[in-house]
Amino acid sequence: MVVGLGPGDRENITPEALDAIRSASVVAGYHTYMQLIEDLLAGKERVATSMRGEVERANKAVEKALQGELVAVVSSGDPGIYGMAGIIIEVARGRVPVMVIPGVTAASAAAASLGAPLMNDFASISLSDLLTPWETVQKRIDSAAAGDFVVVLYNPRSHGRPDHIKIAREIMLKYKSPATPVGIVRKARRGHEERVITTLQNMLDFEIDMLTTVIVGNSQTRVEGEFMLTPRGYRL
Amino acid sequence: MVVGLGPGDRENITPEALDAIRSASVVAGYHTYMQLIEDLLAGKERVATSMRGEVERANKAVEKALQGELVAVVSSGDPGIYGMAGIIIEVARGRVPVMVIPGVTAASAAAASLGAPLMNDFASISLSDLLTPWETVQKRIDSAAAGDFVVVLYNPRSHGRPDHIKIAREIMLKYKSPATPVGIVRKARRGHEERVITTLQNMLDFEIDMLTTVIVGNSQTRVEGEFMLTPRGYRL
Repeated sequence: MVVGLGPGDRENITPEALDAIRSASVVAGYHTYMQLIEDLLAGKERVATSMRGEVERANKAVEKALQGELVAVVSSGDPGIYGMAGIIIEVARGRVPVMVIPGVTAASAAAASLGAPLMNDFASISLSDLLTPWETVQKRIDSAAAGDFVVVLYNPRSHGRPDHIKIAREIMLKYKSPATPVGIVRKARRGHEERVITTLQNMLDFEIDMLTTVIVGNSQTRVEGEFMLTPRGYRL
Repeated sequence: MVVGLGPGDRENITPEALDAIRSASVVAGYHTYMQLIEDLLAGKERVATSMRGEVERANKAVEKALQGELVAVVSSGDPGIYGMAGIIIEVARGRVPVMVIPGVTAASAAAASLGAPLMNDFASISLSDLLTPWETVQKRIDSAAAGDFVVVLYNPRSHGRPDHIKIAREIMLKYKSPATPVGIVRKARRGHEERVITTLQNMLDFEIDMLTTVIVGNSQTRVEGEFMLTPRGYRL
């Protein structure tokens, strides 16, 4: 089972995901996420690996399942969106049954904190080039901005690639106004949440790291009081 | 409060959402969604409206809040993705506090059922032209396909616009191979779920309606056993 933990706090994990963890004999996950569910792990075997240990974690999890264990691989947010669902299916190769249990993804958690920036069509793009060529990522940013999508940026910045977010902003400025609202949310629904609503012009003035989700508006997005709002188009 | 019910079954609503409904004195929603939480509504005032009654529902909900009631506006999936969050903020205009409580969106629920089609960048597009001009929707389909995004289609077909899905397919065929895997999921995690994995060539041979979510792969998406898989790019 590949299980979505949601954004991080216990109030945002689904009953189906909790039941899956409770029923498992082995729980596998990145150690930071394992800590979030520490109280549920008593009596279970643990397979905790480091941040870039996805392949190792998937191999160990499938190995345990082949030995007859009921394994829960936990993944933050929704395991089907930049999470562990894919690699588990790839490694399992049909040798053990795989079930994916969805969760609240970071885009939804960040959007809820900002108000309603995702009420119209949006594109979700990871700025990490560890697994996707940077040229492909840049092309997608260009296409999404050309199509006037709201753009959700996952993994917006890390030490290895501090400039990706700057280049992404420049590409979007080819199509989007500098006044386009931008929401920056750190640790959405994971405790100590921080949020900023700024503009495409000024977004680099704020701290952006790997715990941050960035949402860039479309041509209709506006600031409404304390909220970032992309109107759906209702006539009021 | 605008509250996400998730895809529909009780196992996929978050504790935060359930608590919000339990604490409310008034619950407002489309009557089909109200039925899903019937057992939670005892003793609460109800504001149920029809499917296209979003503006009326939002006005009534804000009116109740202005009278001092604690109102929960329920919305299926994630209220921040094609849901009720935006219109509530628009109608409230800062006169009452608004809180958005996220849920598992239909894209996540459908993806979990199909395997792992959303492991790389994706675009979410609603084929409804009730609120967005059809020319804008077509342009977005074109941009998303040109950028090799996985494409999630919400509201893929209704009686009023049976041909949108056909036109969407034709636009995508300009860029995507006819062999591109397509997943069609009806009532994902809402009971009586139905799923099909087919191709862009053959997708119109299957039933697609308003309860369906359609996911069209990118150039890397493949069928892996019973699953639809967009590899994230790990070296195995």
